[in-house]
Order: sequence, then C-alpha cells, then structure tokens
Amino acid sequence: MEKIKSIFSEQPQFDAPILVEGLPGVGNVGKLAAEHLLDQLKATKFADIYSSYFPPQVVVDEEGVIKLVNNELYYSKADGKHPDLIILVGDYQGLTPEGQYDLSDHIIQLCQRWGVKTIFTLGGYGIGKMVEQPRVLGAATSKEVVEEMKAKGVIFSKGEPGSGIVGASGLLLGLSKVYGLQAVCLMGETSGYFVDPKGAEAVLRILASILNVEIDFSDLESKAEQIDLITSKLKEIETPAEPKREDLGYIG
Amino acid sequence: MEKIKSIFSEQPQFDAPILVEGLPGVGNVGKLAAEHLLDQLKATKFADIYSSYFPPQVVVDEEGVIKLVNNELYYSKADGKHPDLIILVGDYQGLTPEGQYDLSDHIIQLCQRWGVKTIFTLGGYGIGKMVEQPRVLGAATSKEVVEEMKAKGVIFSKGEPGSGIVGASGLLLGLSKVYGLQAVCLMGETSGYFVDPKGAEAVLRILASILNVEIDFSDLESKAEQIDLITSKLKEIETPAEPKREDLGYIG
Amino acid sequence: MEKIKSIFSEQPQFDAPILVEGLPGVGNVGKLAAEHLLDQLKATKFADIYSSYFPPQVVVDEEGVIKLVNNELYYSKADGKHPDLIILVGDYQGLTPEGQYDLSDHIIQLCQRWGVKTIFTLGGYGIGKMVEQPRVLGAATSKEVVEEMKAKGVIFSKGEPGSGIVGASGLLLGLSKVYGLQAVCLMGETSGYFVDPKGAEAVLRILASILNVEIDFSDLESKAEQIDLITSKLKEIETPAEPKREDLGYIG
Amino acid sequence: MEKIKSIFSEQPQFDAPILVEGLPGVGNVGKLAAEHLLDQLKATKFADIYSSYFPPQVVVDEEGVIKLVNNELYYSKADGKHPDLIILVGDYQGLTPEGQYDLSDHIIQLCQRWGVKTIFTLGGYGIGKMVEQPRVLGAATSKEVVEEMKAKGVIFSKGEPGSGIVGASGLLLGLSKVYGLQAVCLMGETSGYFVDPKGAEAVLRILASILNVEIDFSDLESKAEQIDLITSKLKEIETPAEPKREDLGYIG
Repeated sequence: MEKIKSIFSEQPQFDAPILVEGLPGVGNVGKLAAEHLLDQLKATKFADIYSSYFPPQVVVDEEGVIKLVNNELYYSKADGKHPDLIILVGDYQGLTPEGQYDLSDHIIQLCQRWGVKTIFTLGGYGIGKMVEQPRVLGAATSKEVVEEMKAKGVIFSKGEPGSGIVGASGLLLGLSKVYGLQAVCLMGETSGYFVDPKGAEAVLRILASILNVEIDFSDLESKAEQIDLITSKLKEIETPAEPKREDLGYIG
Repeated sequence: MEKIKSIFSEQPQFDAPILVEGLPGVGNVGKLAAEHLLDQLKATKFADIYSSYFPPQVVVDEEGVIKLVNNELYYSKADGKHPDLIILVGDYQGLTPEGQYDLSDHIIQLCQRWGVKTIFTLGGYGIGKMVEQPRVLGAATSKEVVEEMKAKGVIFSKGEPGSGIVGASGLLLGLSKVYGLQAVCLMGETSGYFVDPKGAEAVLRILASILNVEIDFSDLESKAEQIDLITSKLKEIETPAEPKREDLGYIG
Repeated sequence: MEKIKSIFSEQPQFDAPILVEGLPGVGNVGKLAAEHLLDQLKATKFADIYSSYFPPQVVVDEEGVIKLVNNELYYSKADGKHPDLIILVGDYQGLTPEGQYDLSDHIIQLCQRWGVKTIFTLGGYGIGKMVEQPRVLGAATSKEVVEEMKAKGVIFSKGEPGSGIVGASGLLLGLSKVYGLQAVCLMGETSGYFVDPKGAEAVLRILASILNVEIDFSDLESKAEQIDLITSKLKEIETPAEPKREDLGYIG
Repeated sequence: MEKIKSIFSEQPQFDAPILVEGLPGVGNVGKLAAEHLLDQLKATKFADIYSSYFPPQVVVDEEGVIKLVNNELYYSKADGKHPDLIILVGDYQGLTPEGQYDLSDHIIQLCQRWGVKTIFTLGGYGIGKMVEQPRVLGAATSKEVVEEMKAKGVIFSKGEPGSGIVGASGLLLGLSKVYGLQAVCLMGETSGYFVDPKGAEAVLRILASILNVEIDFSDLESKAEQIDLITSKLKEIETPAEPKREDLGYIG
C-alpha cells in the first residue's frame, strides 16, 4: 500500500490560506488549541490522511463503529475578518523519523498546491514545573517573520528552546524553509506532566489575535480548572520527584 | 525480494464469499477459533503468503521437514447452508507497523478481487482476570452492521474496547472502511494470561450461528478443560499479581 | 545505493554445484566449519556481497588496510571426487528481518542462475550445557532429502529444534522450498556459550563424507583443545548460572 | 519525499579536490577538527544535505530563526599551497545503518562526479582514559596509502582500532575502496568521555601538514584548556568508574 494515502471528501479552493497544525505532543498543547479552534470556527472536514507510519490500530466509538487512526484536515473559509484557514489535527504523529519526514513533506506539498501563505504549528514547551501564566514562545523561518511575531506578542527568548523543536511542529517549519514557505511555531509553556488546557489557551489567544478570529475560551478554561483541581490534590499527597531534564525539551 | 509473496495452488472462483481472519493475538482466541472452523469445515488450503515482514525463520515438523513461516488461506465452498467461506490463519502477524499495514492491505486487495461481502476478524479481549462465561464483544465498519450484529447476539458495549483494536483484526476493519467494504470484529473475553480455548469457543459459537455452519465443539471444550485444570492448580500455588492495565487492551 | 551489491571478480561456470553456507550464529559453528572447508579446499574467492543491511562498519587488517564488512563467495571446482562447490562465508548476517530475507533471497537467485543442486546450511544447535560428543541434527526441504541424510548419519530428532531455525541457515532452506530447490541444514550441538570448534568439526565430518571431500581436522582439533582448556579452568573458578532457555534455540 | 536531498547554492568546478569529513562521533574529535579547518580557511558553503535519515528536528538560533538539521558542504579553492578542498560537516549522522550507508554512498557519488583524489575522514579513537599527548592513528584503503601516511607521521598500530571503524568515517573509506577511490581515516586518541579539542588539534596538525594548510590553533587550544580545567575539577570530586570496554571502540 502507499505509505500515505489522503482521501478528499471535497476539493475546496483557497485564497492565500493559513495552515494551522496541532498534533499530539508535550502536554497536548498544540492538539488542544487546534481542536478548540476548529470547534469554534465550526470548520468543515475535507480530508482524511491514512498512513502505515501511524500505529496499526482502529479506534472504536461509543456505538461500536470503528475508524482507522488518521490525521484530518478541516477548513474555514474567510469571513471578512479572518483569512481562509486550514487546520491539521489527528490522533498520532508518525512512529518513525522517516515517517515524520514523509508525513510533513506530504503536508508541505499540499500547502504548495493550495498556495498557503503561512503555516502556524502549535506545540507545548515543557519546562518541568507548574506554570501559573504560561508564556508563548516562538520560532520562525526568517528574521522578518520573527519581527512580525514579536509585534504580535510572541516571545523570542535566546536559548529557548535550547534542544530545538522535534516532530511535526518542527519539521513543518524546517521543510517550509527548504521549500521557500513562511512558517511560525507557537509554543505554550507547560509543565509537560499533564494534558494542559492552560497552555493551549495561551497559544490560542495569541493565534486568534494574529488571525483575527473570535474565540470563546470558556470550554478550555473549565478544562483547565479541572486539571488545576486534580494537580492541587496530587500536590497535597506527594511532592513530585525532580523531573529528568531530557524529558522537557520535546515540543510536539 | 517482494515484501509479500502469495503463492496460489489453485485459483477458486467465489460467489459473494465471507472472509474469516484468525491470526495470533491475545489468548490466541482468534487463531484457535479460525483453526477450529477450518478443521470442522475440512476447508482446502489454496494459498501461502510469505513475507519479509514475518520473522526470518522456518519451523520444523516431526519428520524434520521445514516450512518457511507464513500465513495461509483456506476455502470452503457454499453447501446450501453456509455461503462461500475464505479463512485466513497463520503463525505470525507482521513484525512492524508498516508490515502489518502492508499485509492487511494485501488481504483487502484480494478480498476486492474475489468480491468478498463481509470480513469477520476474530480476536481476544483481554480483561486481566479469569472469565467464567466469556462475552463476545463486537466492533464494525458501520452503524447498520452494528445493528445487524446486535440482533445476532454480539455485545456492543460503550467504552469497550477503550484502547481500540490493534493488529490485523483492527487493520482489516479499518482498511475495509477506507475501501468501502463491510467488516466486523468479534472479540471473545479472555484473561489474556493463557491460550484460551473457552474464549475461542464463545467467538466461534456466535460466528457459526451467523454463518449457518454446524460445529462440533468437543475438541475446543476438552482443550478448555485442560487449561482450567492447569490454571486451578496454579491458583492453589499462588495468587497472581495485579495485571498491568496497559497489557489488557491488545486484541489480535 | 542498492541495498545489496554483489561484485564478481570472475564469473565461473558450474556443473550442478553444491552451495555450502556458514555465517555467524550460535557458537559460530557454521562459520568455523565453512571457513575450515574453504581453507582445506584452497577455494577461490569470486564475489564480495556488500549490503546496507550489514553494520555500517569497516574492519582494519594488521597493516592498517580497511575492508567494508561483507559476505564472500568462494568456489572449488569438481576434482573427480567432490562436485563443484560454492561456499558462502562472512562476518555478519543482515541486521533486520527484512535484511535477512533480502540477503537470503539474493543468494537463492544466484543459486538458480548457477543451477545449484543442493544447498547445505551449517549452524549450531545450542543446548545450554557442555557437550562431549556433539550430535549433528538435520532439517530439510522434503521427506526424501530427510531419508537421504539419515542414511549419511545425520540425526533427525522429533521436536529438535523445537523453536525452528532462524537466520540465514533457516531462510535459505525456507526460500529453497518456496522456489523448488533442495536444501539441508546441518546443526552441530554446542553449549552456545563459546565459539565451538568441536561442534564445527562434527558438522564438517558429516558434510565432508556427504561431499566426498578429504579434510585434515588438526587445526579445528587444536582450537577445540584450547577452548576445552579455557572452559575447564573457568569451571574451577565458578559454576555457571542456569542459562535462560530462550537463548538456546537460535541457530545461525 | 526523497530520503536524501542535496540543495546546491553554487556548483563549483574542482581540480582533483580533497574531501575532508568531520561529523559527530567519539569526543566529537572529527567534527571539531573539520569545523576549525573550515573556519581557518574561511571556506564557502555550497550545499545543504537534508535527509529523513536525520532526526525529525529543527534547531533554533539565537534570534529565533530555525534550520532543519542537515549536513553541509564547504569548499576552499587551491591557493598555490593547498589543493582544492571540500569539507563535509554537520550536526548528525544517519540514525539507522541503512541511513548511514545511503548518506555515505551519496557523498561518494558526489566525489566521483567532482573527481575527488583522496578522502580524509576524521574521528576520535576512544581509549577510556585521559590522554596527555594524543597519538593520531590511521587506516586506509590500500597498502600504498598506508605507507604514504606513515611518512607523514600517522601511526599505524597492529590491532588498533581492534573493533573496526563505524559510522561515516568508516563507511566513506569502505565505499571508497569498493568504488576504487583512495581514502584515509585519521583518528585522534581521546578518552571518549568529553568533547575533546586536544584530540581534534592532534588530528588537524597532521592533516594540515599533509594538505599544506596553515592553521592558527589558539582557539582549539583555549577550548582544550577549558576542558582540562573542568576535568581536573571533576577528578578532585570523584574517581570515575571503570569504563565499559565496548563503549570505547566507536569512531565517528
């Protein structure tokens, strides 16, 4: 079988669209942010991406109907305020380095076909301790884009992230640069120990202001409160051991 | 060499056949059930599937004659009661995710060529404790098939299996859905600690009634009794440690 | 680069040749036996097999000259007594299952081109304890060949090897059967803990009688004495721990 | 995507150039030496080599601008003293054996196109203890080259390195020999525990004299002093445990 198979339910036309990627990673910050964005935009699914680089697995829904694990593409057409948006979400990233390269390259090929103007990849920046007010750090394909993002409130901090950016959030940037596209990674600070809606909210607040999208954050906020409740209870029971430093640099 | 090489000893013609898959997995429930089915049907082997995704190994029979490890296809033509049946059994599943995808895709291609109407994949559902009366849980490619299977006594239970279905039993379903085929997974409850003829019997009883095949279960029952004897003796000696939860969701 | 690249220094013509394989494995029994055979025959190297399935490594000889790790083919033309012989030796087997299949398939393709009549694969049969008089067990592609080998003194013992035969010694047999060639595996009993010239001698004595080759075993015998000396000294110092059963079934 | 993608910013013409390779490995000796060489020569970058064999990762510079991890080629044209030089450096070697073979083969193909006369690969030779005056050991594709290098002060020592040479420094030699090119590996002795500028200096002193390049070593020397300071402080605190012997043979 082909290693990557994209099946399109429709072939929308785009006008200088923006791609937003949010796949699983540290604290699932990127995934939560992208999923909340597509919920708020009531975005339309238009493609399923299947791949032998994903786990050999189906998920089963509440009615007993299965779905092969995949990545999915959604769109939300320009509404006068925000531009055409394409959103990439999914349950998994590729299981191998080669798979991660191939899958990201596949997305970049599609971006070139659609005339994508900018790619935003969303991720978490694991810092190994609880964060009250998560900062949103950035990295980008050029100095010009870095300056543009600074003006929007994204923080560019020398030596952060020191270990680079791995996975789709990194590769989409790296391959964008190779192919001459413009791309930005937005990384929300997170402990890295829990699924982190607070980090996702921080990332999405900045992205929403850049894209001129209105977002109701109440869902993410109530999720964040639940996590806060759980973690504060855990803290009462035990003081966590010192995190291993190498676990913290991963950015999904 | 080709990564998958199927060698056909004959090329039977089929009329809307049903494929039944039973490869190694949790408790070897699927394998035992499919092998018992083909014994009872006196099914005819018509293909050997070799693959570099399998272990690099031969098995040696009692006379010293070797066989390269493989998967095998058997058929049993319609007899007025049951429809044309094709049965897939074997010693191994693919060793890698990519191998598992390729092998399942290979089977799906053959199914499309033969006009397969429905695929039944058989497996075990590991629950981490001894089961007196194993239930048979199901998952399927569509809501319609789910309803049909409920009417036959298959149990569809919200949140079971929570971790999805991995391996051939999952992929054949997932790829069936992608290619527009109809497929069902039947999962017999099993502890997951032993080869489990009781789980296999439960699965095969339901499948036999769906396919309108008459089965003599005495062989499986006597195997089950032997296992019961062994496990009850083991229980006298020691109380098993609490199973790790992540070991139990696998369904082969 | 090609995954397997064979470079021939000459293209000898063969008359119904016999291929003998001896690659690294349990006790290096097969490797030692095949290397001793080619020394005794003063066989001529005619091909180097390089592969990205081997380790990414060069070996350095005593003068500082390197060689990329490889497998090698030697021949010894018929001398009125023995038939045309081709001998396959090398430092490594393929690192992955896929690599092992591809490399064995490559050899089988060459065998078909040369009209090879029979393949003998040589290996060790690890039994986890010291052996005074190693038996030579066999496995073959057909009942007829099994009978023929029994008549030559090869032992075929029900349930041995129970775990099958892995690696090149197994795959060359398995693929021979798939492609309609005739092949035999000769396995010398060995503890599996040391490089074992005694097991190699046992295997080579039987092979030499089958092939009608005269061999001087004094080199192997003196190597065996050295190993005996070392192991008896080790025995004085410590009683070895009970070997893990799963380590013993490997046959290279 | 292609597994290896080289992007050339210019296509320089070369006259019997020498290729120098210095990729990460034991003590990063080869990498440090090659990078210092290209700094001193003010060499010009003319190609980026990207590959799905590298980690799926971008690095982020101090300004927040990313770069996909890669290997890079630099050149320095002949200046009347030294010949045309091509220098290969990078952050990573291939992650898999197959990747290492493919990447080295890719370089060898380029070398053949450019008419490369000799390849020098630079690496560290880990000896598991501190070295005051690191020797520079050699290995080469032929006896003639070994003699030539001996005359230049390279040490060829029987049985060193006993475990062969792995990674790009080994493969470029091995493949050179297969394709009929001439190549030398220069290995600077190093403990193997630290990044080792002293080993790099030793290697580069010999290489510079062979290539007739003038090098200012003050940068490497001051780095070496810093490392000496750190290690002598560490020694005060603790005596390191006996190194595992198998860790020491690696040569990058």
